[in-house]
Amino acid sequence: MRLTAAQLNLTVGAFDANFERIRTAVARAEAESSELVVFSEMATTGYPPRDLLTHPAFVDRNLDMLERVARLSTGRLAILVGFVDRNPSSQGKPLLNAAALCRSGRVVERRYKSLLPTYDVFDEDRYFEPARDVSPMPCGDVRLGVTICEDVWNDKDVWTKPRYHRDPVCEVAAAGADVLINISASPFTLDVPDVRRRLVTQEAVKHGRYFVYVNQVGGNDELVFDGHSIGIAPDGSTILRGAEFEEDVITIDVPLPGAPKPLPILRPVAGSDEESAFRALVLGLRDYTRKCGFSSAVIGLSGGVDSALTAALAAEALGPANVLGVAMPTRYSSDHSVTDAEALARALGIGYEVIPIDTVFQSYLDVLSPVLGGGPLGATEENVQARVRGAVLMAISNRRGAILLSTGNKSELAVGYCTLYGDMCGGLALISDVPKLLVYRLARYVNRKGTIIPESTLTKPPSAELRPDQKDSDSLPPYEMLDPIVAAYVERHLDAAAIAKLGFDPSVVADVIRRIDGSEYKRRQAAPGIKISSKAFGVGRRYPIAAEYRF
Amino acid sequence: MRLTAAQLNLTVGAFDANFERIRTAVARAEAESSELVVFSEMATTGYPPRDLLTHPAFVDRNLDMLERVARLSTGRLAILVGFVDRNPSSQGKPLLNAAALCRSGRVVERRYKSLLPTYDVFDEDRYFEPARDVSPMPCGDVRLGVTICEDVWNDKDVWTKPRYHRDPVCEVAAAGADVLINISASPFTLDVPDVRRRLVTQEAVKHGRYFVYVNQVGGNDELVFDGHSIGIAPDGSTILRGAEFEEDVITIDVPLPGAPKPLPILRPVAGSDEESAFRALVLGLRDYTRKCGFSSAVIGLSGGVDSALTAALAAEALGPANVLGVAMPTRYSSDHSVTDAEALARALGIGYEVIPIDTVFQSYLDVLSPVLGGGPLGATEENVQARVRGAVLMAISNRRGAILLSTGNKSELAVGYCTLYGDMCGGLALISDVPKLLVYRLARYVNRKGTIIPESTLTKPPSAELRPDQKDSDSLPPYEMLDPIVAAYVERHLDAAAIAKLGFDPSVVADVIRRIDGSEYKRRQAAPGIKISSKAFGVGRRYPIAAEYRF
Repeated sequence: MRLTAAQLNLTVGAFDANFERIRTAVARAEAESSELVVFSEMATTGYPPRDLLTHPAFVDRNLDMLERVARLSTGRLAILVGFVDRNPSSQGKPLLNAAALCRSGRVVERRYKSLLPTYDVFDEDRYFEPARDVSPMPCGDVRLGVTICEDVWNDKDVWTKPRYHRDPVCEVAAAGADVLINISASPFTLDVPDVRRRLVTQEAVKHGRYFVYVNQVGGNDELVFDGHSIGIAPDGSTILRGAEFEEDVITIDVPLPGAPKPLPILRPVAGSDEESAFRALVLGLRDYTRKCGFSSAVIGLSGGVDSALTAALAAEALGPANVLGVAMPTRYSSDHSVTDAEALARALGIGYEVIPIDTVFQSYLDVLSPVLGGGPLGATEENVQARVRGAVLMAISNRRGAILLSTGNKSELAVGYCTLYGDMCGGLALISDVPKLLVYRLARYVNRKGTIIPESTLTKPPSAELRPDQKDSDSLPPYEMLDPIVAAYVERHLDAAAIAKLGFDPSVVADVIRRIDGSEYKRRQAAPGIKISSKAFGVGRRYPIAAEYRF
Repeated sequence: MRLTAAQLNLTVGAFDANFERIRTAVARAEAESSELVVFSEMATTGYPPRDLLTHPAFVDRNLDMLERVARLSTGRLAILVGFVDRNPSSQGKPLLNAAALCRSGRVVERRYKSLLPTYDVFDEDRYFEPARDVSPMPCGDVRLGVTICEDVWNDKDVWTKPRYHRDPVCEVAAAGADVLINISASPFTLDVPDVRRRLVTQEAVKHGRYFVYVNQVGGNDELVFDGHSIGIAPDGSTILRGAEFEEDVITIDVPLPGAPKPLPILRPVAGSDEESAFRALVLGLRDYTRKCGFSSAVIGLSGGVDSALTAALAAEALGPANVLGVAMPTRYSSDHSVTDAEALARALGIGYEVIPIDTVFQSYLDVLSPVLGGGPLGATEENVQARVRGAVLMAISNRRGAILLSTGNKSELAVGYCTLYGDMCGGLALISDVPKLLVYRLARYVNRKGTIIPESTLTKPPSAELRPDQKDSDSLPPYEMLDPIVAAYVERHLDAAAIAKLGFDPSVVADVIRRIDGSEYKRRQAAPGIKISSKAFGVGRRYPIAAEYRF
């Protein structure tokens, strides 16, 4: 059958705009004489709608939209689309995560998701009742074996301890599906494209069927969906690969098993982790900005690598003319901090302002002296400085209607090496899931064709420049130690003893873990970030604050 | 059988401290010749541990503690305690929410929770595999029908559309339980004590058994557990009522059905919603502060009712000597704002400082003038003022090691009538689940025995005092309209048409909803609050930011 995989960039709740995208893709499929166009999971609402699902009016609008989509199915073209259905039973959760097959202007088949993820960023058991069983969807002469996203993630031949008790892909294949199809909204992480490809390949080969996997694309809040739809032949070869980080509508002939294979249609893939991460961050930023109604951004430029990378990403995502960099030197700033910031702004072609803030800092010290007392300046005063910068940037953001991007990286946010209401101010913490060493690698990637980020930014020792001659290394272990310890604790949940066994000084490990645990209160008030790792700070990591825990 | 209900204030992850509390309660039960002492759900870890459960070392420590608790069971005294067990199966979620019966120094029976809540603040399907079935626990001659928290919330005779497919209380009663016991960690809301009492009574009467319900007490992050354990006889009469908002260890003889009823032991209950809310907020604040390692608090006093109530709650929770109020007048402050703040501080006996901030505000305007330009002051400058106050308070908080309490109420937070990084600064947003009209009622409650909060604070029109003669009513509908519209939308999920039908101007309703939807980005960065309503902003309300939705 001729099949069109439509990976679209959908905005949560933007029913009319999403419908237009779907309509355009349907027209394209028709023009290509397709028999079936396949959209991603919950394409009516965009994924994830989260607690919008608790509003009956939201579910109604999604059902209205399903009817509108169904009316687009005319002639030979059938439409398979993800939506949210109501659970008709008198028991159980109120909704079902659903797929509809539309033919001749109406919905002819409905099937439901069996496996509802509740780990990491997922909360599907909060809203949905699982399907009790699965069966193929008849579509003309072909029986479509349709599953939804997580349904493909529980093969007992892949996982040593499957999370669920069922394998819907196995069930639908056993029930006589001719072609396997999975509609997904699977968020990007650096590792996940490979895992997905292996899972889909495993199922295609194991069941001797073609398997087409269609994923959403685009950024929705913290999540970036990378698209990267896949088609695998029963022999394990790839017949279809959708674009990464872009919308794509691809039509291909999917034969029955045994018939000759089609010519593969394979879009290019990123050549390195740096390229993947860079493109994911650009897409996440562009979509967050656009979907929140902004068209421009403001960034504090310190002359350091974090703000430089953030600015480079913003220039790529929004266009240099829509980005303003602001340097805010004080008495503690080095000369190169301003010259590096200016050189960066010039190289990127973004706007640039210098606002010296010493007078504001001093005015705080003056009014605070009766309560703070005299004595040497300490962390309190360092925080005041950072907060002056935050307030200056927010004033510019407020007046210009530009989103403020905070520039902290994952290593800092992990150990709390950042000031709440200071450098943490912003609508989006763009690189808060990027550890410092990866920040450097991405900065080198930015410079791959020539110097954009000044060489001195890349070579000078990292510093917050909040007191004379300050260096990150005064307060933190070297990033070559910090980053792997953070990853071991935050992403792999190893305890101190296990991390020390990886080759780190136990006292350093204990200190890092103590800082991570003790910084939960800061992270609770952090801006959303763009997730690129298996465990980002944000909605997928849920820790108590008023608690004792020492691992 | 002689039974001791032990409702303890447990700190998440504080294994040693929690063990000491349990040990003390066991000693008390022994001294009272009890045969069974019952602790709350997950008493080993404290509830809710959230993603700490994903750390194997955390689960290990809880299992070690279970063994320590089991060793306390000697002689006649059995111990029933909630803990976290590992799922021994090769499939499914890794953990089980469990109850252990301990006798003669060891665990003799284990049973598991069947119904795992995932609505509102709950995420139990994230961690736990449900019990497949339930059966009574033999304890000497008595068969205990033990269920865990949510297990009692699915009686099909109570709910028109039960959320789950099973009724574990019914199952365990049918399987021959002599006594019904539920161990809970059920968070307080203003409505929930009545609902719980009705549920437990319904089951006791329906199954003709005594039913003892033991709940956790104390604040853990946003949640306050109110204790308020309950014992109900088969005739529906109350034989036991634990203290509200306090630890309590109560021993009572629970007969088999048909034997004479014991004399009831009933602790007093709050006489009004105001008293309940006040006590919940005091407990929530006291525990959040203590469990985070603070002993003192700082509060900005504006002369308004929100900061006055916050200060009164803090004085009650922490002692007046541990609370500092700070007035920060500017050119826009009325005379009474400072005199009211001072009168309040004096009446409460808390510390008091005045820090005029006009010079800091002016220094911002000076450095910002090149980028902001001239012209009249607007929202940008109002935000700068609010942020100066936030930074001043944070400096005091940093230097003194006192937690900053932000003072915004639920009505403001709903519609975004607050400044991110300004008045939203703080470690705890104490009254962020208290709508403005309830703030006034609580302020009158504070004054029930004499004036603490100045009368003029209660009678003057609410104002942010960020520009000349500003009033809340310039920007917002009257709170008599705003509060019920917010409740209808946020707590009941009604759409605009349904809210208008309640008797509100449709254009006002539309405007309020637009503001609520548009303020999600602020709330994402808000400090935790103390939940007292059925739907607080915070971990139990999960909305996207970069989305379109208009109901």
